[in-house]
Amino acid sequence: MAVIRILGIDPGSRYMGYGVIEQEGSRLKLVDANRLVLGNAPFTERLLRIDSFLNEYLQQMQPDEAAFEGIFHQKYADAAIKLGHARGVAIVACARFGLPLFEYSPTDVKQSITSFGHAEKAQVAQMVRILLGVQNAWPVDASDALAIAICHANRR
Amino acid sequence: MAVIRILGIDPGSRYMGYGVIEQEGSRLKLVDANRLVLGNAPFTERLLRIDSFLNEYLQQMQPDEAAFEGIFHQKYADAAIKLGHARGVAIVACARFGLPLFEYSPTDVKQSITSFGHAEKAQVAQMVRILLGVQNAWPVDASDALAIAICHANRR
Repeated sequence: MAVIRILGIDPGSRYMGYGVIEQEGSRLKLVDANRLVLGNAPFTERLLRIDSFLNEYLQQMQPDEAAFEGIFHQKYADAAIKLGHARGVAIVACARFGLPLFEYSPTDVKQSITSFGHAEKAQVAQMVRILLGVQNAWPVDASDALAIAICHANRR
Repeated sequence: MAVIRILGIDPGSRYMGYGVIEQEGSRLKLVDANRLVLGNAPFTERLLRIDSFLNEYLQQMQPDEAAFEGIFHQKYADAAIKLGHARGVAIVACARFGLPLFEYSPTDVKQSITSFGHAEKAQVAQMVRILLGVQNAWPVDASDALAIAICHANRR
């Protein structure tokens, strides 16, 4: 059975969560997950860091598909525009690499993990560990990125 | 006297205005201006088009510095986030090329062109033509990009 390698990305302007899983039929396997710390560097430098990190990471990981959380109904224009910059850079890095990109709503992501659209972050993280059969304690951005990748695996 | 080549960019999710001028002391010279039409292509494809256009254009034009309009006080989160994606991609393309980047507020840009912060788009375009000593009729995105480049030339 074909093994599909899925990259999930949870972009942000201070941290970017990322996680790679492998799907073989109904089996899911953790490959890697972490977050990129962008911190308080000048904004342009943070964007460049996302770009250069992903260029290298995609080469190293060779995923087949990438999944992002869709951005819907952002409340605050100032936060939305910063997030937009970071997300645009991450999307282009993946698209330049030739990856098919998929988007899921936050509710889709939570539902595919917990069958419950309003789960707490900690519950999502716990379910991600169970579904991948691991004990890892990641930063929240990393488990969110894995949740997005798992959502895509369920929907494929 | 040193000649400095300045790229002005007015990013958007449907059109991206761009313009290149040369500054030699107090003299300004038009090099090129136009807009990239992104139209109704899928959003990811539009972002990729910005990236690949700029990669080629920067190679061809070899600017020394790049100027963007800063994004302040966007009203609508949905529009802001789309603009953010496009702007993030354009910023990273310029930063990857090694260009020093500068940002100016819309009011700065208008004031440096017309000494009047609330000028109409058509007045800005007319002043851009006068300052560059040309008769060209550009799309509004292109003259806005030239106005940003001229603002930077004035502030250097």
